[in-house]
Amino acid sequence: MTDPVLALTLGDPAGIGPEIVARTLVDAATMQGHHGVAVGDAGALKRGVAASGLKVSVRMVDSFTQPKLDGAIDIFDTGVLGKDLPAWGKVDARAGRAAVTAIEVATKAALDGMVDGIVTGPVNKEAIWEAGCAHLGHTELLGELTRVQNQDTMFVIRTTHVPGHHLRVFFATRHVSLKIAVSQITQERIEKSVRQADKALRVFGNENPRIAVAALNPHGGEGGTFGDEEIKEIAPAVLALQAEGFDVVGPIPADSIFHKGLMGSYDGILSLYHDQGHIPTKTFDFDGTVSVTVGLPILRTSVDHGTAFDIAGTGVARHGTMLSAYLSAVEFSARVPAIRAAYSPETQD
Amino acid sequence: MTDPVLALTLGDPAGIGPEIVARTLVDAATMQGHHGVAVGDAGALKRGVAASGLKVSVRMVDSFTQPKLDGAIDIFDTGVLGKDLPAWGKVDARAGRAAVTAIEVATKAALDGMVDGIVTGPVNKEAIWEAGCAHLGHTELLGELTRVQNQDTMFVIRTTHVPGHHLRVFFATRHVSLKIAVSQITQERIEKSVRQADKALRVFGNENPRIAVAALNPHGGEGGTFGDEEIKEIAPAVLALQAEGFDVVGPIPADSIFHKGLMGSYDGILSLYHDQGHIPTKTFDFDGTVSVTVGLPILRTSVDHGTAFDIAGTGVARHGTMLSAYLSAVEFSARVPAIRAAYSPETQD
Repeated sequence: MTDPVLALTLGDPAGIGPEIVARTLVDAATMQGHHGVAVGDAGALKRGVAASGLKVSVRMVDSFTQPKLDGAIDIFDTGVLGKDLPAWGKVDARAGRAAVTAIEVATKAALDGMVDGIVTGPVNKEAIWEAGCAHLGHTELLGELTRVQNQDTMFVIRTTHVPGHHLRVFFATRHVSLKIAVSQITQERIEKSVRQADKALRVFGNENPRIAVAALNPHGGEGGTFGDEEIKEIAPAVLALQAEGFDVVGPIPADSIFHKGLMGSYDGILSLYHDQGHIPTKTFDFDGTVSVTVGLPILRTSVDHGTAFDIAGTGVARHGTMLSAYLSAVEFSARVPAIRAAYSPETQD
Repeated sequence: MTDPVLALTLGDPAGIGPEIVARTLVDAATMQGHHGVAVGDAGALKRGVAASGLKVSVRMVDSFTQPKLDGAIDIFDTGVLGKDLPAWGKVDARAGRAAVTAIEVATKAALDGMVDGIVTGPVNKEAIWEAGCAHLGHTELLGELTRVQNQDTMFVIRTTHVPGHHLRVFFATRHVSLKIAVSQITQERIEKSVRQADKALRVFGNENPRIAVAALNPHGGEGGTFGDEEIKEIAPAVLALQAEGFDVVGPIPADSIFHKGLMGSYDGILSLYHDQGHIPTKTFDFDGTVSVTVGLPILRTSVDHGTAFDIAGTGVARHGTMLSAYLSAVEFSARVPAIRAAYSPETQD
């Protein structure tokens, strides 16, 4: 087996993407056993290198398999922008088009087996809409490019509490208001989400995943005193799943479930709304929380932050999350055959 | 100024309270400059010492000012149970009565200036109800005993990210279902909660508190796409408070506000619902998160966990939170004159 090669898309060239990709590739260049190649406009990466004050040259490559070169980072140039780079920190249709093209090229390379996975820099939704891309965001675009639906997000948290233990967090609802999320907590949705989480944990390397479902209300509803979703929806879902053989517990009060998970009690946690899963992971390790898109036939990790237009081009952007996303992709590259088999368009549920 | 003396109530004697109070007093006995005295049934504390396997004697005292004795921990015996102790781990009206009496005695000692503050062990609500106490819980009972209303909870988090920085977390809503909490997020409530938080931060020693208000919805609602409470209620409240001179910002997305607060950007965070404040604090430091009751004319800290009837009497209970609550009370004892002045029944709003 050869060393894994990952494609890192620059994201929106007007944002911090080129800077954090450049810093990540510089770090990665010193590490043995894997290789990262940027995908996007070479000029945008060069500008990111200059803004970051990095002492490294940018090499344009026309394949992903060229050996590492000391003192250089590599880019597969998509050539959308040429010498005419968009201004830092502004919504720009050409920047959006460049971001989308990089995703298209990287995704095709992953589908064709030229790279083991993709790590995506942040895009600006308005910019990609102005560029004529009709998708809500990154994940929907990737779904179209790989001809699948029903992608989920899996957060990967690097806990140091228990050596060798990894915690993953899933979401029953996500980009809706909290009021709507509460109304969407049904037995059917919980059951479906746990099944998807169980499958994802197995595909990504957990042979016998232990899953816990968070409660919705304070103290898990305290016997119905503070809400009855636990009694009417969540507990029945857990019982039904247990009867089918799933190793699942819950509802567990949300203010202890993440502590228990980090201490090794669970492999996966199903959070019921966006912030329920985002708050603990980002408070615990702001830079180390990586987002993995589950349901694609390719390996894709990403940062969960945005383009940070307010600081783009100033060189102060921290690349901790991008580096974590890259290293998680390296780690998961061994799972690519399982990912391809589980989530190819032909095997969709 | 003499060293502070704190009263530690045993909580429900059928729960883990006596064990964690015993362990905390043993730790405290080795520390200079302060003194802890248990309040409750001497027999219950002795049983807790035995269950914990501690090598220490229990001394009954009839005042709180007796000097420390090597190899002993002190209890102000309330004499409710005598030799007839309730079984471990069962709801019992006599145990509830003993728990309530300990709170009454400790509160009177604090009101009379015999102790500098009280640190309360966990009670079982059903047990205190069976004992004829009509209050919803601890905090309401303390309100009656000290003749005040409108108590709030302030969480104190010991962050090690920034030396000398302390973060406190407040709550706009608390023991209601998430659905009801969402419906209670109004401009009026936010404004009132920030005023109370600002006052509490000053009373507890922050001269110029910087407060941040959390958002309710994912990404702070993303411009109204995922809910409009930020636009209609929270932002107007923050603007009105800023116009009055409060140092307040928000709404800040809930998955970054706690990280920023721990890194030193804020002194206090207003969380909008129970779990929004509980999840990050307990994930960040499960044992170090202390609850302080604000609005009482006495200093009161407490554990935020329950009686843990399932492990009571087995000696395995961890006392980390009780010790943190005790040490926070020691720290805040210098603020007792300010607490008394700010929250006496005569100065109630």
